[in-house]
Amino acid sequence: MVYLIGAGPGDPELMTLKAVRALRAADVILVDALVNPACLEHARPDARVIKVGKRAGSDATQQAHIEKLLVFHARQGRVVARLKGGDPFVFGRGGEEAERLRAQGFDVVIVPGLTSGIAVPAALGIPVTHRDLAHGVTFLTGHGVEHDWDALVRSGTTLVIYMGSRRLSEIRRRLVGAGMAPDTPACAIANGTLATQRHVVSTLAHLSTETLTGPIIIVIGEVVRLGCAVEQSAPARAA
Amino acid sequence: MVYLIGAGPGDPELMTLKAVRALRAADVILVDALVNPACLEHARPDARVIKVGKRAGSDATQQAHIEKLLVFHARQGRVVARLKGGDPFVFGRGGEEAERLRAQGFDVVIVPGLTSGIAVPAALGIPVTHRDLAHGVTFLTGHGVEHDWDALVRSGTTLVIYMGSRRLSEIRRRLVGAGMAPDTPACAIANGTLATQRHVVSTLAHLSTETLTGPIIIVIGEVVRLGCAVEQSAPARAA
Repeated sequence: MVYLIGAGPGDPELMTLKAVRALRAADVILVDALVNPACLEHARPDARVIKVGKRAGSDATQQAHIEKLLVFHARQGRVVARLKGGDPFVFGRGGEEAERLRAQGFDVVIVPGLTSGIAVPAALGIPVTHRDLAHGVTFLTGHGVEHDWDALVRSGTTLVIYMGSRRLSEIRRRLVGAGMAPDTPACAIANGTLATQRHVVSTLAHLSTETLTGPIIIVIGEVVRLGCAVEQSAPARAA
Repeated sequence: MVYLIGAGPGDPELMTLKAVRALRAADVILVDALVNPACLEHARPDARVIKVGKRAGSDATQQAHIEKLLVFHARQGRVVARLKGGDPFVFGRGGEEAERLRAQGFDVVIVPGLTSGIAVPAALGIPVTHRDLAHGVTFLTGHGVEHDWDALVRSGTTLVIYMGSRRLSEIRRRLVGAGMAPDTPACAIANGTLATQRHVVSTLAHLSTETLTGPIIIVIGEVVRLGCAVEQSAPARAA
């Protein structure tokens, strides 16, 4: 039995009751580097915790290694928990891991988690949809993938980009090239929902993540204005 | 103090620890009709629970009434919890309620919840993104709104449609008209994550929700194949 568990965006209080129960049941826990260590407080003291964050070797090697470990421990008859940041099925490669495990005959239970693309903007008061401003939202990865930027701009949805910080200047150029207004409100948030959360609010043309460190979520669209207004009118809130 | 709380997609175990804590703190709870009553088990026995689901009157009347109730109880100095299905900031009008409350000077804490568009497909083993099949996902409302269907098709993202059941035949026609292959895998899921969950898997051209009752999530894209495969190879799982 393998649980693929979403640990949520960072704040350990944003784990679900089901995630807590699954962690308590686990004999072995394979945990990603980005998961808040405080989430592991729900594990049994005798559970074996294995960190499988990014290390030397290519991304593909790393992924194959994780899948091998999952299969190995499941084969020993252990209850295995695979703990991932956010939701396992949103840019989490949970789909691949579930396929691999099921192909080998193991039961897999998906325990969804809060995805950063929704919960992190919410922590700044930014709703990703809004009746007057955005009738939809698109989640994209900025990491090593080509998108039809023209179509994304025309869709009129709020754009939320995961892992887009390194390619931000290119993304900015592509979106403006595809016709998005350079003064479209945009925001970048690092370490969202944690005490170390920091953000910058700007326009598409001027957004920069240079002052931020840690995993970053980028939100582009009119909805960003709602969060800004909140921040400006409530300076006492942690930025 | 007002908490805007996401109750998640249905299964009360998919609430977050923070949602549970906020409910426990509440003197008054305003709850939507679609929220699973089991979620209220975390409320204090002396808390006042007010159901504010859809009733007579227009949608706008209803929304104004809810906002009035929130302001009224907050003004009495009570801890108010506003409990919504899914996430309050994804097609939940949480943005509007937060704006209204902040404009009146009240502190608002957003407690995000699992949105149905991710957690409901996950309950069928369908990941909304997948390295080989979809580099992004778009959430849309099917209710009373026009979209640029052309752009949505070209975006190449998985499409997840909330409240789209009534307009399904039109959505189908628009997507095919905009160039989406009629044999694109598609799935509709009612009462997702509950014991009463039911679904149909088909193609875009043939998807129908006639046999389903309850709130419905529609997923369109190649990722649907992964869930189908799971279901077919594991018939013992509840459909």
